[in-house]
Amino acid sequence: MDKVRFGVIGVGNMGSGHCKMLSEGVIKDAVLTAIADVNPVKLAMQKENLDYSIACFNTAEELFASGLCDAAIVATPHYFHPPLVIKGLQAGLHMLSEKPAGVYTRQVKEMNAAAEKSDRLFAIMFNQRTNPVYKKMHQLIADGELGEIKRTSMIITNWYRSQSYYDSGAWRATWAGEGGGVLYNQAPHNLDLFQWITGMMPSSVHAFCHFGKWHDIEVEDDVSAYVEYPNGATGTFITSTADAPGTNRFEILGDKGRLIYDSDTLSFRKLEMSERAFNAASTTGFGEPPSAEVPLTIEGDNSQHRGVLTNFTQAILGNEPLNTSGVEGIKGVTLANAMHLSTWLNKTIELPFDDDLFYSELQKRVAASPKTAKGTDKVLNIEGTFGGAKK
Amino acid sequence: MDKVRFGVIGVGNMGSGHCKMLSEGVIKDAVLTAIADVNPVKLAMQKENLDYSIACFNTAEELFASGLCDAAIVATPHYFHPPLVIKGLQAGLHMLSEKPAGVYTRQVKEMNAAAEKSDRLFAIMFNQRTNPVYKKMHQLIADGELGEIKRTSMIITNWYRSQSYYDSGAWRATWAGEGGGVLYNQAPHNLDLFQWITGMMPSSVHAFCHFGKWHDIEVEDDVSAYVEYPNGATGTFITSTADAPGTNRFEILGDKGRLIYDSDTLSFRKLEMSERAFNAASTTGFGEPPSAEVPLTIEGDNSQHRGVLTNFTQAILGNEPLNTSGVEGIKGVTLANAMHLSTWLNKTIELPFDDDLFYSELQKRVAASPKTAKGTDKVLNIEGTFGGAKK
Repeated sequence: MDKVRFGVIGVGNMGSGHCKMLSEGVIKDAVLTAIADVNPVKLAMQKENLDYSIACFNTAEELFASGLCDAAIVATPHYFHPPLVIKGLQAGLHMLSEKPAGVYTRQVKEMNAAAEKSDRLFAIMFNQRTNPVYKKMHQLIADGELGEIKRTSMIITNWYRSQSYYDSGAWRATWAGEGGGVLYNQAPHNLDLFQWITGMMPSSVHAFCHFGKWHDIEVEDDVSAYVEYPNGATGTFITSTADAPGTNRFEILGDKGRLIYDSDTLSFRKLEMSERAFNAASTTGFGEPPSAEVPLTIEGDNSQHRGVLTNFTQAILGNEPLNTSGVEGIKGVTLANAMHLSTWLNKTIELPFDDDLFYSELQKRVAASPKTAKGTDKVLNIEGTFGGAKK
Repeated sequence: MDKVRFGVIGVGNMGSGHCKMLSEGVIKDAVLTAIADVNPVKLAMQKENLDYSIACFNTAEELFASGLCDAAIVATPHYFHPPLVIKGLQAGLHMLSEKPAGVYTRQVKEMNAAAEKSDRLFAIMFNQRTNPVYKKMHQLIADGELGEIKRTSMIITNWYRSQSYYDSGAWRATWAGEGGGVLYNQAPHNLDLFQWITGMMPSSVHAFCHFGKWHDIEVEDDVSAYVEYPNGATGTFITSTADAPGTNRFEILGDKGRLIYDSDTLSFRKLEMSERAFNAASTTGFGEPPSAEVPLTIEGDNSQHRGVLTNFTQAILGNEPLNTSGVEGIKGVTLANAMHLSTWLNKTIELPFDDDLFYSELQKRVAASPKTAKGTDKVLNIEGTFGGAKK
């Protein structure tokens, strides 16, 4: 294979962007050969922008069966990510899904099982992992520079969305159509970074989600969550789509130093000795472990979607390892699900939680929603339909 | 009265500092005339440093009865603040208590009732309120510059204390001797600022206190709390005595702008129109309310303890209004108590909570403590004893 032939499934905001990049030759060794969307209007609009040679399908299944694609990108509403990834892998395609991995862990586990059985690659669009500042944070922690993590504090409130955004698609911000709000559409990137940068998944989550607090929607648009980690560390995660100006700050404290990311600047203050050692040894009553700022060199291209697509392409060609393994997508979904479940049950959720319990609680919301009819049909019966484009 | 004659009760770390300021003439129109401490060693040590004319007493009661003082400062362990303030007021003295106002709200309410009956002044050492940066924040919000508050996030973890600090006094960090940890000794300042700057008390508190997590102590040294306000705003408050380097950051978001305090620098970003109005009016789908940084002028002396003492003195002389009214001290104690109670009962605490329930829960911890005997005696019987010096 010289070039990887790509299909794009779902040509809404994100999918049409991927079409543009692929068709303009921005991704080395990749070529766009087909698109699919259940919405004929969106499909026709996209067709106009693209070379006549690109095939257009009304269903993903036709695209998978066409023989025109080696790989496909899934950019549909969230519920359809797992079933389409599974079908694509089974049809012999390499699959790249937009985030989140899915809406509920039970569904994502099925996808991951299919991926593990398959000899094809499965990736997720964790485009923010390409940011060299986040990569640096991940690396410093992986290298032990912070020592044992004691506290994490993420405030990620710069995902502003007005009511008109939510009104722009009937599936948006509904239990049936999207399965959640800010935790499932905007903040999945940050839920991924929250665990990927630190290298730690929480062992418990206690969250305070507010549903339709700032917008006329039925899902969450404001979340404050407290987490505990297996090593005893604690953390907080705050997100919203109504904060303006928003904040993007991530503070991580270890027993050997503190890392503060704030609006794409990073500072690292390192202790001369571990705080735990100082605590045990100090005899002065007051006083604290001496520390100093460590200058950081941050290099590399913030390549975002282009970077993920390029790496995915080169990984398919056997030239690079895959950076954004799709099976890791379950971690962010686990955190989002745990935050919902904690709020719904008004209690602390230990991880792993009961996937079936979460699913049944979600289905209660879907069933109670005035927006159920259409959405439920979409969710429960995906044969021959996989929803329109997303975002 | 030309000069206010001061007594200092409890001459430990804080009390001896107050003695020094008063005896060196740093506080205009104030003079030190007497000190008291139940610990004869501390009393003798202090006597050596002071002018021979300053009277020394073994009990506060003797100091109150001496006729030598117009006002007194209470710098004993926390449990003794309310009973000593009450006795001092009843003896006709103006009273200034160190923070916190007390250990439990029931006790503080008795103090406030006594203060309201008295014609004497009652103040609390909220020395951090003299910081011109905090004053500016308070004023901007009081002036409506932020509009309706939507979110508060305080991380105040720069109260580092090593084990040797806790080992320096048998009363420290015990249920019987101190009644709590970081929320009662170090962070009372910040609990006060948390409500004073915003002008809002939460309506509910859900907290995750960790007791003896980082130190060999029985009280809390690590706290993450989530609060909700009557207007629907939410907030988080994080504190610890084991974080190094520590953070001191307070972000406040209103529907008209955002204020960020970080390590004594303040930034204010103001929206061109209210976020709520933008949300309703916008038709663009994406996009957010335009905003701009507003340069701030911060003027004035960060006068701290000196400032509070000076104002208290001038207020007694009728020359100034009192800035740090003692009856407001109950707000911080309410927050600290609510955080304890939430953790103990593992549930959200609505404010106002049941004072008696809190007291009985606290007494359970006092009774179960191996450090009970001595401490309980101190707490339950304050006749003729009021504890040694504090901090």
